[in-house]
Amino acid sequence: MSRKPYFPPVPGAPGPLRVSMEREVRFEEVDPMDIVWHGRYPSYFEDGRQVLGKRYGISYQHFRDNRVAAPIKQMHIDYVRPLRFGDAMSIETILHWTEAARLNYEFIIRNGQEQVTTTGYTVQLFIAFDEELMMYPPDFYARFLENWKQGILE
Amino acid sequence: MSRKPYFPPVPGAPGPLRVSMEREVRFEEVDPMDIVWHGRYPSYFEDGRQVLGKRYGISYQHFRDNRVAAPIKQMHIDYVRPLRFGDAMSIETILHWTEAARLNYEFIIRNGQEQVTTTGYTVQLFIAFDEELMMYPPDFYARFLENWKQGILE
Amino acid sequence: MSRKPYFPPVPGAPGPLRVSMEREVRFEEVDPMDIVWHGRYPSYFEDGRQVLGKRYGISYQHFRDNRVAAPIKQMHIDYVRPLRFGDAMSIETILHWTEAARLNYEFIIRNGQEQVTTTGYTVQLFIAFDEELMMYPPDFYARFLENWKQGILE
Amino acid sequence: MSRKPYFPPVPGAPGPLRVSMEREVRFEEVDPMDIVWHGRYPSYFEDGRQVLGKRYGISYQHFRDNRVAAPIKQMHIDYVRPLRFGDAMSIETILHWTEAARLNYEFIIRNGQEQVTTTGYTVQLFIAFDEELMMYPPDFYARFLENWKQGILE
Repeated sequence: MSRKPYFPPVPGAPGPLRVSMEREVRFEEVDPMDIVWHGRYPSYFEDGRQVLGKRYGISYQHFRDNRVAAPIKQMHIDYVRPLRFGDAMSIETILHWTEAARLNYEFIIRNGQEQVTTTGYTVQLFIAFDEELMMYPPDFYARFLENWKQGILE
Repeated sequence: MSRKPYFPPVPGAPGPLRVSMEREVRFEEVDPMDIVWHGRYPSYFEDGRQVLGKRYGISYQHFRDNRVAAPIKQMHIDYVRPLRFGDAMSIETILHWTEAARLNYEFIIRNGQEQVTTTGYTVQLFIAFDEELMMYPPDFYARFLENWKQGILE
Repeated sequence: MSRKPYFPPVPGAPGPLRVSMEREVRFEEVDPMDIVWHGRYPSYFEDGRQVLGKRYGISYQHFRDNRVAAPIKQMHIDYVRPLRFGDAMSIETILHWTEAARLNYEFIIRNGQEQVTTTGYTVQLFIAFDEELMMYPPDFYARFLENWKQGILE
Repeated sequence: MSRKPYFPPVPGAPGPLRVSMEREVRFEEVDPMDIVWHGRYPSYFEDGRQVLGKRYGISYQHFRDNRVAAPIKQMHIDYVRPLRFGDAMSIETILHWTEAARLNYEFIIRNGQEQVTTTGYTVQLFIAFDEELMMYPPDFYARFLENWKQGILE
């Protein structure tokens, strides 16, 4: 892709973490134009975040166990090609390093012919269960960041 | 709001068209964190586009009757404040003028206290039913643009 | 309709409570066969229950304020005619009297020509927030039943 | 289960066809009561039908290729136990033999502890693409039935 990167590279930062999953377009996801309804993609992105989160110990459940929420602050989607009912698809989820107290996720969806159909990103902040915005990542996430920096994530 | 405008003003262009609608947060739209699930907002935006489209003769049905589709090419959402079950909300939909063959919609969602909860935009292109990308707007839309420019849309 | 009643009449019981609402089929509710996806109707039924509940003080919020949940135990839907994008529709919601600790709701959906398109019912039980099944209705609901029996619900 | 069978056994009929699939409860499927929203189950049933349909050559795509639709005529759901976010679950889909021009599907959903959480059924009719109700199954489905009867479906 020739587009500008969603998250500009941070000098000296560890490389991004990547996880891919495969799935298939379901009937109820398709609209009367016979393509996946554009409003379905946030759900695909969430599937991607959940798979990466489980792999690295930063899933929704890990946040909840630590009494922290990570609400979406910003979402952006670029629709390149349509997906149709029954299409095979892959969701590549990429977590980008940042020093800030936030989660910068990028997504690349491809069809069965490995063509990019959709790209996008989400930004999440940390909110303690007392509804206070957190200026620093919660402890379990800080440990995850430390491991990432040390290069000891698989 | 102090944020940068989603669509920079075009010198000499006619002012944007605005329509507002009221609705209420439904139970199924709320997630286990007790706030509207972030992936529901594309549906709110679509409600907004449909209301403006009906008012000005450029609804989904008008496109279909003219054998043109207007798929979403880009969507962006900024989440400012959460909405909760039963909250009153308003969706302000704003169509911005452009000379290009596209639809530039902006959205501002407010809660019952008139606080902005969410803003965002969508960009749509024109695709003929033979799947050809259209470099110029379809005729019925060109007439709508002409009326807009003449200031004869109420 | 000639079909068997969903809830057989109870001798001596007060008449059912009825509320109707109007809405329109939304784009995202329609499937690739150009009809409302069959799995959307539970959402229509919920809209109906919520309108009746607000009118009579037995909405989802009233239950929550009383620390009682009323989960769906059974749902049944008969699809008579399809609904299409943009169709006007009405949802008639009917609460049937019962001595048991449950909510017996019936639904009749009609299109803009007043033809019945869909009928169905839901049955809900009462569960206290400590997850105990309740053999008797919660107090606020018992008062509502008493008023219903006295005929002082408008 | 001690409940009455959804589809009474037909004497002399070939045994039902069964397929199971595994999945996990997704975040967006869970409601503010922290259980899967009751209106999500039609989507689980559809996943089940699609898996069985692909296995036996009677999927949505097979119907479409033969210019026949098989709309849902009736759906019934019994909610036995709740499912929660992240729960493992299995969907067992059972196609019951019938001489009539319809599809009689039964569903049994179980949680990770193999407890039944939900049961239900759907009934589908055959509609030709010219919108005519079909009194006999389409040819490709009649062949499938013949194979089923001969016992040559694995």
